[in-house]
Amino acid sequence: MEDIQSTKAKHPLAIDKVGIKDFHIPLVVRDLANEKQHSIAKVDMSVDLPADFKGTHMSRFIEALEEWRENSEEKLDYASLKNLLEQVRNKLNAQKAYLSFNFPYFITKKAPVSHAAAPVSYQCRFTGEWDKTWDKPAFLIEIEVPVTTVCPCSKAISKYGAHGQRTYIKMHIKLSKFSWIEEFVHIAEQAGSAPIYAVLKRPDEKFVTEQAYENAYFVEDVVRTVAYQLDKHEHVEWYTVIVESCESIHGHNAFAMIEKK
Amino acid sequence: MEDIQSTKAKHPLAIDKVGIKDFHIPLVVRDLANEKQHSIAKVDMSVDLPADFKGTHMSRFIEALEEWRENSEEKLDYASLKNLLEQVRNKLNAQKAYLSFNFPYFITKKAPVSHAAAPVSYQCRFTGEWDKTWDKPAFLIEIEVPVTTVCPCSKAISKYGAHGQRTYIKMHIKLSKFSWIEEFVHIAEQAGSAPIYAVLKRPDEKFVTEQAYENAYFVEDVVRTVAYQLDKHEHVEWYTVIVESCESIHGHNAFAMIEKK
Amino acid sequence: MEDIQSTKAKHPLAIDKVGIKDFHIPLVVRDLANEKQHSIAKVDMSVDLPADFKGTHMSRFIEALEEWRENSEEKLDYASLKNLLEQVRNKLNAQKAYLSFNFPYFITKKAPVSHAAAPVSYQCRFTGEWDKTWDKPAFLIEIEVPVTTVCPCSKAISKYGAHGQRTYIKMHIKLSKFSWIEEFVHIAEQAGSAPIYAVLKRPDEKFVTEQAYENAYFVEDVVRTVAYQLDKHEHVEWYTVIVESCESIHGHNAFAMIEKK
Amino acid sequence: MEDIQSTKAKHPLAIDKVGIKDFHIPLVVRDLANEKQHSIAKVDMSVDLPADFKGTHMSRFIEALEEWRENSEEKLDYASLKNLLEQVRNKLNAQKAYLSFNFPYFITKKAPVSHAAAPVSYQCRFTGEWDKTWDKPAFLIEIEVPVTTVCPCSKAISKYGAHGQRTYIKMHIKLSKFSWIEEFVHIAEQAGSAPIYAVLKRPDEKFVTEQAYENAYFVEDVVRTVAYQLDKHEHVEWYTVIVESCESIHGHNAFAMIEKK
Repeated sequence: MEDIQSTKAKHPLAIDKVGIKDFHIPLVVRDLANEKQHSIAKVDMSVDLPADFKGTHMSRFIEALEEWRENSEEKLDYASLKNLLEQVRNKLNAQKAYLSFNFPYFITKKAPVSHAAAPVSYQCRFTGEWDKTWDKPAFLIEIEVPVTTVCPCSKAISKYGAHGQRTYIKMHIKLSKFSWIEEFVHIAEQAGSAPIYAVLKRPDEKFVTEQAYENAYFVEDVVRTVAYQLDKHEHVEWYTVIVESCESIHGHNAFAMIEKK
Repeated sequence: MEDIQSTKAKHPLAIDKVGIKDFHIPLVVRDLANEKQHSIAKVDMSVDLPADFKGTHMSRFIEALEEWRENSEEKLDYASLKNLLEQVRNKLNAQKAYLSFNFPYFITKKAPVSHAAAPVSYQCRFTGEWDKTWDKPAFLIEIEVPVTTVCPCSKAISKYGAHGQRTYIKMHIKLSKFSWIEEFVHIAEQAGSAPIYAVLKRPDEKFVTEQAYENAYFVEDVVRTVAYQLDKHEHVEWYTVIVESCESIHGHNAFAMIEKK
Repeated sequence: MEDIQSTKAKHPLAIDKVGIKDFHIPLVVRDLANEKQHSIAKVDMSVDLPADFKGTHMSRFIEALEEWRENSEEKLDYASLKNLLEQVRNKLNAQKAYLSFNFPYFITKKAPVSHAAAPVSYQCRFTGEWDKTWDKPAFLIEIEVPVTTVCPCSKAISKYGAHGQRTYIKMHIKLSKFSWIEEFVHIAEQAGSAPIYAVLKRPDEKFVTEQAYENAYFVEDVVRTVAYQLDKHEHVEWYTVIVESCESIHGHNAFAMIEKK
Repeated sequence: MEDIQSTKAKHPLAIDKVGIKDFHIPLVVRDLANEKQHSIAKVDMSVDLPADFKGTHMSRFIEALEEWRENSEEKLDYASLKNLLEQVRNKLNAQKAYLSFNFPYFITKKAPVSHAAAPVSYQCRFTGEWDKTWDKPAFLIEIEVPVTTVCPCSKAISKYGAHGQRTYIKMHIKLSKFSWIEEFVHIAEQAGSAPIYAVLKRPDEKFVTEQAYENAYFVEDVVRTVAYQLDKHEHVEWYTVIVESCESIHGHNAFAMIEKK
């Protein structure tokens, strides 16, 4: 059967990334509290393509992924993603491989007073990139953490009350060494006016309401606190933090962003 | 050229709706304050198909819509939608036509103290259905109105503050007679703890913060107030109201729904 | 602490549904091939609320769900959903409970020639509703199945080729008795021009290309074939089938819908 | 009234961007065929914030935008965006302003044989950034163009037919001088197997089916052709092109990306 992919390209330009997007798989993720957890990931996989080849062989991405998943030792972490990057590079005869796993990660959280426990979901994205000429892969982790924020301006100028809302803290972090998702969730939750929880009984609701009112913060405050903590974290080489609040007094959102130079 | 659509169906079953979905067009909508406003709609158009025809002629939907749009007198309202329903039914040789326009509608709102003005967007959907055997078309209007809600439980049990959030009120309304979108937006905004605005200066922010705190409502309160007002509205034959609040203390939402029996 | 929820409502109207939406949890689903599979669900939970109570107790939904999840015997199926409906009704002192689980379900599919295996994801929604006055709950299952369709008109009138596209078949089914998701996926995949697969080697690609060209179908053909098969299925009491094709020659979609009368 | 925003920050870190997101407005866009067209934009607006200020004054973004919109001469193009960048920078006492308008842009397209005309929607994003130390703003335009692609491998190995699908070409372009959206839509549509249209009669459908079959291209071919044409365009300083095809034989997508070095 003819191998059209291996014929000449009409416009011989090198392609930075070619591959598959939005492929869904069940997978096992390394977890601090329970060693592992089951999740479901949306996967992007790609390689570079030199100027002189017309096409890549897309089915090999899925094959590499399936071989990796079948290896029962593999749960998603740095070591296993490194293996997969190497396998993809080899299987696709590529110089460079790029992988991205977008998945919800669950942490069981206890309410602050009643200690009622239930899982909270944090959307994560774990990305690896590896060029043959590099010693080791580059890893990026993205974590989105919902928190409450209460507006300090509204609090200062109003007789009572203060507008609050759900706010999302998105961290994109380049790590020099393995760190737990839980560490960054903690940093983000401490930076908001109060953390969010899945289950809150009345004494808990009183607690978080008062905590949030006492710790009224702008998106500007939150983004700075997270950046300050990430600057202090030993394994963080680079980051971007975006804080976006679903303003309860507007139909649009407010946001703030700091990128480490 | 062969007309495959007019051949026999393998399984001769009547089809309730066949047509096009998510077709985008610019259009003009009838507007209370300025007579008309420019918007952009996502349009669904369909007809029934008897058991003995294999297919419908999809291009005729677009043709009917374009003829209707080119008629410079036409802005989206009851009368013009009625015309279009009739044209679609005729052009497609159908018993029944179904049309749906999903579009943002802008209302310029003034801040409560400073009177600073800016537009707020309300997502609307205007649906018409007309069977040949019916005297007149059935019309349904859907309007989504963002408001602020403050939690009365949180307010009652806490020393200070009360959690608040952005809340969406979605009304699906069957009307016996033309009514303005503005009437239902007003009903919804009065039912929340406070309306939302596009621009709020500091005195405005103080005003809405205190207003929301004074009028703390559950989603249950809001859905009942809207239902109560729609029950009293002379042109409303039937409705469903859904109120969904983006809880600021949780990662999930709370909702309440009333459907008129 | 004051129980605001139990006070009187200002507008004493009965609420059809009040509860939580978009709560994410990991869960185990009953699976034909492997007995069980891990998935992640977006959960909606609600109850009715009589006219004379101001509010429901939202935290009890999560508590009921967590107790159900902790019971290690529970995987999502008819029997376990029935248990949960009863627990929710009791815990919330309600007349009626309503639950909905929206989750991806994976089936390992083998390519038609090479037999290369990889998982395909089908978005499912499993809904249960139970009023105290009913003998047993009402269950609804929704399944979305992507297939290929090739246009029979394009094939008939063109010298060569025929436009094709990804098409989604959405079935909403009321069952009188337990049936496997796999049965309905099979019905849908047989109704398209060809099934889709996660991995296809070249001989597989030749196979499905020719299969799809030989079985060119309109959305009208596909919706009728699925309806015809569901009419014959012993456990299907009621259904709606919607077929929506992402037309490759247009920016909009084509769709067809049949609802069992 | 206290100006909390002007107090000291706890963690005095400079903020790269602070502002508003997803604010919807109606606006007028400069148009090649008709001089101007009405559209609706989702607007992001931000400025930098020095380390020593706690917060920015968010309401001023909306005020600046409303003043700009009220100026009846203003339609969205390079000159007017330049004005708005300057106004935002001044009004917010900022060093740098950043604006982004995300809007659908309609081009009336005629079917290739029947010449039946109807609008096609292209999602665009127009971004401007201006630091006080720069001579002039930096502008970026993003345009998404749907096309048909037919797979050359499937065509080569199959007895008849070839799988095709809707494919999206996304261009991010930095321009040195004004160019029309229409120029880039044209480049993208020429690079696919065939353009898409809103309305196609049977002779048109035959035409595009045969055209697409004759011009079978991989995403790799398409991304290279677009990159090749952008390399030749005099006003293009930099670009990224992403081509993503909604594979009709898979549930996932294929993609390719070239970034100008």
